[in-house]
Amino acid sequence: MSIDIFNERESDVRSYCRSFPAVFTTARGAILWDENGRSWIDFLAGAGALNYGHNPREIRSKLIEHLESDAICHGLDLHTATKRRFLETFERVVLAPRNMPHKVQFTGPTGANAVEAALKIARKATGRAGVVAFMGGFHGMSLGALAVTSNAESRAGGGVSLGDVTFAPFPGGPTSHIDSLAWIRMLCEDSHSGTGLPAAIIVEPVQAEGGVNVAPVEWLRGLRALCDEYAIVLIMDEIQTGCGRTGPFLAAEHADVMADVITLSKSISGYGLPMSLVLMRPELDLWKPAEHNGTFRGNQMAFVAGTAALELFEALDVPALVDSAGLVVSDFVSKEILPLDPGIALRGIGLMWGIDMSGTRLDATTLAADIARRCYHAGLVIERCGRGDSVLKVLPPLTIATEELVLGLSILRDAIAAEMAVEKKP
Amino acid sequence: MSIDIFNERESDVRSYCRSFPAVFTTARGAILWDENGRSWIDFLAGAGALNYGHNPREIRSKLIEHLESDAICHGLDLHTATKRRFLETFERVVLAPRNMPHKVQFTGPTGANAVEAALKIARKATGRAGVVAFMGGFHGMSLGALAVTSNAESRAGGGVSLGDVTFAPFPGGPTSHIDSLAWIRMLCEDSHSGTGLPAAIIVEPVQAEGGVNVAPVEWLRGLRALCDEYAIVLIMDEIQTGCGRTGPFLAAEHADVMADVITLSKSISGYGLPMSLVLMRPELDLWKPAEHNGTFRGNQMAFVAGTAALELFEALDVPALVDSAGLVVSDFVSKEILPLDPGIALRGIGLMWGIDMSGTRLDATTLAADIARRCYHAGLVIERCGRGDSVLKVLPPLTIATEELVLGLSILRDAIAAEMAVEKKP
Amino acid sequence: MSIDIFNERESDVRSYCRSFPAVFTTARGAILWDENGRSWIDFLAGAGALNYGHNPREIRSKLIEHLESDAICHGLDLHTATKRRFLETFERVVLAPRNMPHKVQFTGPTGANAVEAALKIARKATGRAGVVAFMGGFHGMSLGALAVTSNAESRAGGGVSLGDVTFAPFPGGPTSHIDSLAWIRMLCEDSHSGTGLPAAIIVEPVQAEGGVNVAPVEWLRGLRALCDEYAIVLIMDEIQTGCGRTGPFLAAEHADVMADVITLSKSISGYGLPMSLVLMRPELDLWKPAEHNGTFRGNQMAFVAGTAALELFEALDVPALVDSAGLVVSDFVSKEILPLDPGIALRGIGLMWGIDMSGTRLDATTLAADIARRCYHAGLVIERCGRGDSVLKVLPPLTIATEELVLGLSILRDAIAAEMAVEKKP
Amino acid sequence: MSIDIFNERESDVRSYCRSFPAVFTTARGAILWDENGRSWIDFLAGAGALNYGHNPREIRSKLIEHLESDAICHGLDLHTATKRRFLETFERVVLAPRNMPHKVQFTGPTGANAVEAALKIARKATGRAGVVAFMGGFHGMSLGALAVTSNAESRAGGGVSLGDVTFAPFPGGPTSHIDSLAWIRMLCEDSHSGTGLPAAIIVEPVQAEGGVNVAPVEWLRGLRALCDEYAIVLIMDEIQTGCGRTGPFLAAEHADVMADVITLSKSISGYGLPMSLVLMRPELDLWKPAEHNGTFRGNQMAFVAGTAALELFEALDVPALVDSAGLVVSDFVSKEILPLDPGIALRGIGLMWGIDMSGTRLDATTLAADIARRCYHAGLVIERCGRGDSVLKVLPPLTIATEELVLGLSILRDAIAAEMAVEKKP
Repeated sequence: MSIDIFNERESDVRSYCRSFPAVFTTARGAILWDENGRSWIDFLAGAGALNYGHNPREIRSKLIEHLESDAICHGLDLHTATKRRFLETFERVVLAPRNMPHKVQFTGPTGANAVEAALKIARKATGRAGVVAFMGGFHGMSLGALAVTSNAESRAGGGVSLGDVTFAPFPGGPTSHIDSLAWIRMLCEDSHSGTGLPAAIIVEPVQAEGGVNVAPVEWLRGLRALCDEYAIVLIMDEIQTGCGRTGPFLAAEHADVMADVITLSKSISGYGLPMSLVLMRPELDLWKPAEHNGTFRGNQMAFVAGTAALELFEALDVPALVDSAGLVVSDFVSKEILPLDPGIALRGIGLMWGIDMSGTRLDATTLAADIARRCYHAGLVIERCGRGDSVLKVLPPLTIATEELVLGLSILRDAIAAEMAVEKKP
Repeated sequence: MSIDIFNERESDVRSYCRSFPAVFTTARGAILWDENGRSWIDFLAGAGALNYGHNPREIRSKLIEHLESDAICHGLDLHTATKRRFLETFERVVLAPRNMPHKVQFTGPTGANAVEAALKIARKATGRAGVVAFMGGFHGMSLGALAVTSNAESRAGGGVSLGDVTFAPFPGGPTSHIDSLAWIRMLCEDSHSGTGLPAAIIVEPVQAEGGVNVAPVEWLRGLRALCDEYAIVLIMDEIQTGCGRTGPFLAAEHADVMADVITLSKSISGYGLPMSLVLMRPELDLWKPAEHNGTFRGNQMAFVAGTAALELFEALDVPALVDSAGLVVSDFVSKEILPLDPGIALRGIGLMWGIDMSGTRLDATTLAADIARRCYHAGLVIERCGRGDSVLKVLPPLTIATEELVLGLSILRDAIAAEMAVEKKP
Repeated sequence: MSIDIFNERESDVRSYCRSFPAVFTTARGAILWDENGRSWIDFLAGAGALNYGHNPREIRSKLIEHLESDAICHGLDLHTATKRRFLETFERVVLAPRNMPHKVQFTGPTGANAVEAALKIARKATGRAGVVAFMGGFHGMSLGALAVTSNAESRAGGGVSLGDVTFAPFPGGPTSHIDSLAWIRMLCEDSHSGTGLPAAIIVEPVQAEGGVNVAPVEWLRGLRALCDEYAIVLIMDEIQTGCGRTGPFLAAEHADVMADVITLSKSISGYGLPMSLVLMRPELDLWKPAEHNGTFRGNQMAFVAGTAALELFEALDVPALVDSAGLVVSDFVSKEILPLDPGIALRGIGLMWGIDMSGTRLDATTLAADIARRCYHAGLVIERCGRGDSVLKVLPPLTIATEELVLGLSILRDAIAAEMAVEKKP
Repeated sequence: MSIDIFNERESDVRSYCRSFPAVFTTARGAILWDENGRSWIDFLAGAGALNYGHNPREIRSKLIEHLESDAICHGLDLHTATKRRFLETFERVVLAPRNMPHKVQFTGPTGANAVEAALKIARKATGRAGVVAFMGGFHGMSLGALAVTSNAESRAGGGVSLGDVTFAPFPGGPTSHIDSLAWIRMLCEDSHSGTGLPAAIIVEPVQAEGGVNVAPVEWLRGLRALCDEYAIVLIMDEIQTGCGRTGPFLAAEHADVMADVITLSKSISGYGLPMSLVLMRPELDLWKPAEHNGTFRGNQMAFVAGTAALELFEALDVPALVDSAGLVVSDFVSKEILPLDPGIALRGIGLMWGIDMSGTRLDATTLAADIARRCYHAGLVIERCGRGDSVLKVLPPLTIATEELVLGLSILRDAIAAEMAVEKKP
């Protein structure tokens, strides 16, 4: 029952296991167990891949059934009955009700790969190379996705120059005093902006890794209008925000904005199985066969799970579920955490919340790390995000029971209170 | 039972389904069934992801057991008992017997992502940006992997300049008259080569997509020596050649060459489940935590399958299996296919063979397409690769029964014979 | 006496001759003559290369003397007595009085080449690649200089991606509401700005091509402080502003700011002869011999002229000259031109002024072109600059006689008045 | 009479003055004098800028006349009578007799700037970005020109990634066993070459800096045919080889090959005055006005000198002159230098010769440096080039008197003999 093998053989790149060093074995809903039988409430939820919780019954049964029937499990981009079922369900649950004419591309099963495909689509359709991305944005670690990711450490890891991208301020954050839309308009219009008309603007409706920064509804609408005006492809990265995380299936629905290209991954399979999608307006589907390919773009197990997940989305009425759970979080934090220090801030929407410690008078990075560590020891797994990793990210399964949610929040409150007290000691 | 939904909703990027338009439902070993009960022998094997065939019993049972036990299914890079078991098994079956000190990185579960990580490692360790890759090489579709992929159409799809890479001739192919090692040495040594010392050389021991070009043993040794001499990181892309495809676990074992960095994917999970690994010498493990990350880098189902697959590798004595099956292929083709036309050539190793039609006097691209189509109608799924897609690629599961293998080859022989006859008609 | 040969044989890239189609033959001071004996007052002054006017006697005599004596005329970077005299004079007149420890590099004799060298210096010294440049900035047409030039049309001409540069707002212009220094500080400090610490910031103290935008004194000081704080190389491009154009030898003297690297060209030779300099702090002089070279980096005729020009700078008391001439311009424009329309704006310093028509209610691009054409017909050569070429640029020789200056301004006033009247007609 | 000012104030980038540390003052024809009255025979000739020798009378008188008449000296791209005279003379002497339809662009007055313009032209006309350049090639130091320059040290000085260029072997040199044309054809044709169809191929008919490597006539014709076949723009860099250096005005005339784009500089002005030209087929003249510009693109003094130089080219019958002087060199070296050691090789054409020491059994870099130093002390200025700077470059003015030429060669012979003797000592 040792972790020696990880220390000896696994690369030093591993990270979550440094904060949460238990060896986990079992999981169900919002609860994780380690090999010693200890349990944790999970406010991490697979970094957003487990909107329906760990191992939901409704999906599990379909997976087992699939396996037992010897249905095909790896299908490249062949037609399979399983993929057809997924597509039909996706059309019925997602596309048709939203009048989305979009076509579906199954990319390699990582969010980064979906982003790479989305950028290729926009560049091919426009014949332009430049892309506008946002400060605070995160889109993945392969070179194309990394080029639109703002984090300095991640970018440095690329080892080469990352070009053809201009970063604009996102509403909120260190550049909140700047009118971001006016800035982008200037980039497009001013003959001397140094940027020129981009092929695409890629945006997360809520920046997750960047610190849970919620794009205002009016801003998203303005971005859509600007893209329309200049024939720029609007790429909405809904990898973390999609699949009901903020209530509606797509977070951009809050703003009633329809993007030209949408990337989905994380919770689309509903069971943590790797899968990614790109949705694109039909007129952007200019791909030649196999122009973007990949061995695992037909992960049939994920299609099975994804189909069941979409049915769950309907059956559970996820938007309502999220609304009510979201209220629990915002109420609890407002009443019991924000009063602990005037520098604590709350941001979020749906079931995606950030408790920002950077405004406290203390070393926020250390403080947030200490709080997360204290939570871990008290039975709560919670990660940090944002500049300096100083934002505690409340990202439980959407299906978490209210008592579990409140228990988790209580652990968090106590940890914050305790750390604030420690820090204040002379 | 229609394919309308694919035509209406799936992106035009899909490709295999154009050659093999059936709607597949079930699969076992080397056999695929469609929804009408028709069956095909599978010489495609998930583009190399199904070395153990479709749905092998030994792995299937472990997957079902895992699901039924509510073991954790999505684990990011947390420690899990499942991952520990995989690592221990990987060490016992792969690393220890080969005296490999390499550390293991679980990257995003696509080969491309492993390649992206491998390139970052080499660039970080050397402080250099340039990479030498090979004409005919294929490493993936994300921008970093695409930059080392030689295929012109794939590269054009990137939509941006792909830099920091110099392509060298691979032994065989259109540049076979050039001493490839001498060329690379010149690139490194000549102050006026325009290239300079690269961070890495990335090579497939057998180019798959490039047309089943087998790197000679002496050449691989020379490459290793050259990398040693100049402190260049040797990256062996064993994504398609690894996991026993050519007999030994790694194809480079034929040459007794140990690379500094090795990428694995495709058959590593043994069940077609998305998973990728990077192996690196410990001194290259300079990663900072999370410097390369991804949501699905801890696909637990794949770890379960991968553990069982490694045990299968041992239990089945895959190297012996491949040797004998490989002989069947080379004998059959030599005796029954090569005589059909003096322009037909056979290349390959293990159970990875290419029947190259480009030397026939005919339009080889059309010819190979027609042969593959004829095979499909006769019950055999076989893909094409190489320049002009004129090489028929024999890539069955390693576990294919001899009679299935011979049957498949017979279908192929008949198709070739028939198409050659058609073409010869006045 | 035809211009057929130009139309037939000279590339369509030519531009000034389209606005001023005469065939010029003779020039002296601020006056140009064509082959028909017509004369023009010159408010263009060789785009800033003729601060001492055309063919100044004091320099001309030295050039003739040099030629007659068979002194060496082309010297690569050999030691010559001529170069020594230039260096000694430059030290005495420019470096010593300003306590500048800077070393002098003679680059290829174009401003662009000096900029290329300056960027190399900064990148070599810092080991970083990124550069911050400014919207509205112009630094030249070779790929390195073009990458820091903001003009969209110029950039498009490059035909390749121009990377490793981030553009920041310059004070004034379309982004004047943004605190430019705060923006750059954010780029450097914010871990998610997407930019990271640059090697250099390159800036013109007055943007010339960008529309005569004058950097405020406090802003330049802030930029200097920011570069000090972050160990960023501050490159001051004084190619157009240097050599007394704004009064002091360097325009940055107004702000008492000393850059780490300074580029000079245009009027440094004083006779329109090609010559360029890079001044750099000694600790940045990390060049290996010939690491940046060029055949004409030792233009001896330019050294002769440049030495005489530096002596003229002293003898004429250029700063005083410019002060008084500058007052004539600003007074005249304020009193006689600005009242013509509330949308006309005046910007400038020293003897470098822009009359910006973009605020008039009319099509400013056409308007400015029509005004310049009308001036030409009335005997004044004046160019346009800025966004949409809507700024009329008053850039006479520094030595222009007051009556010539006033006559030129009168022609300009009349042309503006006439065009405003034309436009206002129903 | 000190060189302190150079050591104190001139950048360490200076290089020729390290090999030839005298302070030069006067020059005439092929002779240089220093301030102490010492004289040297000049086999460097301004790195090719002084084909007509130092200060030729016929040109000098025109320059003085121009200055005395107050003819315009700096003209941007305005029409001037001086430029018209140059264009007419260039058409009469160069373009018309060769049936060249080419148009003339006056770029910034450096060879690098002409190369930058040539590459832009090719990229604009083809819509492609890639360029094929040659190992051993040198085209300049600004980023665009540097990207096609092969020298590793020069490239490293750029400080950024130099992309969009593929280097091919040049006939001769370390890759002489490779069929260079077949290689380039393969790059263009092979779908997996990693390169794709380039916009341009840029080539020097004789590589100068690369070690005086002469492109064979058949090879140049093959290159022309290949460019025709694939609609690739052929750019001939005649900056050092043009203006009669190899006999005919353009070195490519030896092969009867007409390039699409030709760059000229160095000796085009005939007096060492900075000037550069790009010649382009009319259909490639797609420039928009000012799309490539520069302050000194209208160096009137250089036009005056250039016109006189073209007349000299005719009057002197340069091709005949060069033929006979070239014979003197090749005869002398063959008879008196090659016998000194079997490892010495001679390459060249016209009056451009390299004596390659790299085949001697000795440290060729040190040897060549020692020989050049010994020559300097004996009254001969001669530079080195090629890999390891081990090729002594015989590049006298084309007008050198036979006795001076023989005297220079004798000094060289004696220096080689002396150094070979020194090296051979025990």
